[in-house]
Amino acid sequence: MNPWKAAAPGDPLSAIDTPALVLDLDAFERNLQRMADALKGQAVRLRPHAKSHKCPEIARRQVAMGAVGVCCQKLGEAAVFVDAGIADVLVTNQVVGASKLLHLAELARRARLGVLVDDAEQVHALALVARSQSVTLDVYVEVDVGGHRCGVPPGAAAAQLARQIADHPALRFGGLQCYHGAAQHKRSPAERAQAIAAAAQAAQHSRALIEADGLQVARITGAGTGTFLLERDSGVFNEIQAGSYIFMDRDYRDNQPASDAVVFEHALFVRSTVMSRAVPGRAVLDAGLKASSVDSGMPVVWQRPELKYVAASDEHGVLELPVGTSLSLGDTVMLVPGHCDPTVNLYDELVCIRGDRVEALWPIAARGALL
Amino acid sequence: MNPWKAAAPGDPLSAIDTPALVLDLDAFERNLQRMADALKGQAVRLRPHAKSHKCPEIARRQVAMGAVGVCCQKLGEAAVFVDAGIADVLVTNQVVGASKLLHLAELARRARLGVLVDDAEQVHALALVARSQSVTLDVYVEVDVGGHRCGVPPGAAAAQLARQIADHPALRFGGLQCYHGAAQHKRSPAERAQAIAAAAQAAQHSRALIEADGLQVARITGAGTGTFLLERDSGVFNEIQAGSYIFMDRDYRDNQPASDAVVFEHALFVRSTVMSRAVPGRAVLDAGLKASSVDSGMPVVWQRPELKYVAASDEHGVLELPVGTSLSLGDTVMLVPGHCDPTVNLYDELVCIRGDRVEALWPIAARGALL
Repeated sequence: MNPWKAAAPGDPLSAIDTPALVLDLDAFERNLQRMADALKGQAVRLRPHAKSHKCPEIARRQVAMGAVGVCCQKLGEAAVFVDAGIADVLVTNQVVGASKLLHLAELARRARLGVLVDDAEQVHALALVARSQSVTLDVYVEVDVGGHRCGVPPGAAAAQLARQIADHPALRFGGLQCYHGAAQHKRSPAERAQAIAAAAQAAQHSRALIEADGLQVARITGAGTGTFLLERDSGVFNEIQAGSYIFMDRDYRDNQPASDAVVFEHALFVRSTVMSRAVPGRAVLDAGLKASSVDSGMPVVWQRPELKYVAASDEHGVLELPVGTSLSLGDTVMLVPGHCDPTVNLYDELVCIRGDRVEALWPIAARGALL
Repeated sequence: MNPWKAAAPGDPLSAIDTPALVLDLDAFERNLQRMADALKGQAVRLRPHAKSHKCPEIARRQVAMGAVGVCCQKLGEAAVFVDAGIADVLVTNQVVGASKLLHLAELARRARLGVLVDDAEQVHALALVARSQSVTLDVYVEVDVGGHRCGVPPGAAAAQLARQIADHPALRFGGLQCYHGAAQHKRSPAERAQAIAAAAQAAQHSRALIEADGLQVARITGAGTGTFLLERDSGVFNEIQAGSYIFMDRDYRDNQPASDAVVFEHALFVRSTVMSRAVPGRAVLDAGLKASSVDSGMPVVWQRPELKYVAASDEHGVLELPVGTSLSLGDTVMLVPGHCDPTVNLYDELVCIRGDRVEALWPIAARGALL
């Protein structure tokens, strides 16, 4: 943790110590509104993914704008959001191990908790802990709709697991998790459309078999920021899990045609300062790969396309400058992270700005909640 | 932060909740001893880089084994180590901005503090704050000895900066920072030898000019785990900044021939659990890129070379299994991170094990100290 604060409410932007993770509240609020508008009057609800922000202040605003609750990727994150008063949390992951199952049961006493399964053994373990701890859990079957990561194949395997869940009185069969992660980052709209069409078909086929077995499929949930309009319009999905729409990272924006019906804008930035300019044609920033995750490539410099962030080491970022351009020591830039989720996870606070002032600091309370 | 602890002292390994960052104390202590032995009787001293571990418990052990103090990459890290009682800290970076300079002065009241410069403007700002706050600072000239990141060119530019430092009564000219970061990760020993020979020559040339100007160059400091034997034997360097030797990541080990005079061993691991095995030939771990940094490539599975960690998403790691191998839900593996430094920065605690028991939890107190 930083031994001092990067900023205080009321500070001008120039007083923000760097590197700092900056949230542009106006842009963020416009993104919230765009998503609400996109789902208004549709037969799909929003359960945004909180792994993107890990921030209770943001989750509360999402719920206030109509979200039914949040998704988490880790049980440790779920604990943070339940503590913060979020009443309905879906852990979009398998929860394995005695310690975690007991924590899950404890959380299920205080909020509606859902988890995924893709193995009968997980169903059995969940049923045991739910019964012994006298709690009820929502259990979703994760279906592999193309991501080839977790999830049973669509169809009979999914129906079989659904039946096993439904047969346990302490478990509620919640529906199908049909998230196609790989589709989010496909470069062309046509590829994304094809991938989600196939995912919707796989989901529909699974649902048909489960309904033929006499069970109701209350929820088909999935989608991310890269594809959510496709899931919305599929006629199959009825819950959207997009998370990054509030921030928009470089990678998502690279894929988004300006002609899209809903265009989100960058709201999350790493503010960084030039600390060296000893090599001509270059400037070195104080934000490296511990300040902006490079797993999806380098950040870009906001509104300064002529400045190229070309290399990151732990705590240095190298900018290449065009001929004739020079930066001064102490000059600041705003970086758009290549990938928001792991970048947020590097910070303890969001420095929230509005216009040219710091308005608030919001704790990233689930930062590092890996368990 | 995790809402519960991954383990408690006395626990068997099987009780460690995952993902957890595990330090094998026996291997760690052997690595400490190997470095002490490698520098024993040599005209070089050790100032290990604390950006690798960010952990006061480790810094204290390094000092107890003969280190003169530590390096930090950020002033925020330095504050953590000064608070923990480390008496001599070199920030191997430029410190720019009024807020940071005041914090630097405050730290310099409580410990010996060094910083780098590669610009006359930085010297001027340091002199101003040192004088106004009545403190003395060690100031090193950073020389670009081949890394092309920060640092003035070797020779006249370095000598000029040294003179400017020496002319300010509140600044002590500490010597030359000659770290060749890019050389650490060159794949062949011959390439590394060539790079460090050139770096040593650049350092020597700069020193000669500074001495001709009547100044003493007390220290030529640099080196990392990938090259430190070369700097040790250069006859030019008299301080070694290696940090990763205590842990050894996959990338450093990939470059280290078993025939090296000093061979460090892996001591840092991400313990991870199989949470899904729904796709044949694969298993999915609970450790993704928020549990093990992928900037230098994927982690490897310790002592299970047949298991290939092929893909990381935020909180999933995909293992490819050879035909005929299957893993069970709840099986655990130890991963060797591709790059230790940013991986350590993802955790709040080291779970320290000895043999088959957890011995201690050590706070990673400077985790996230980005300022």
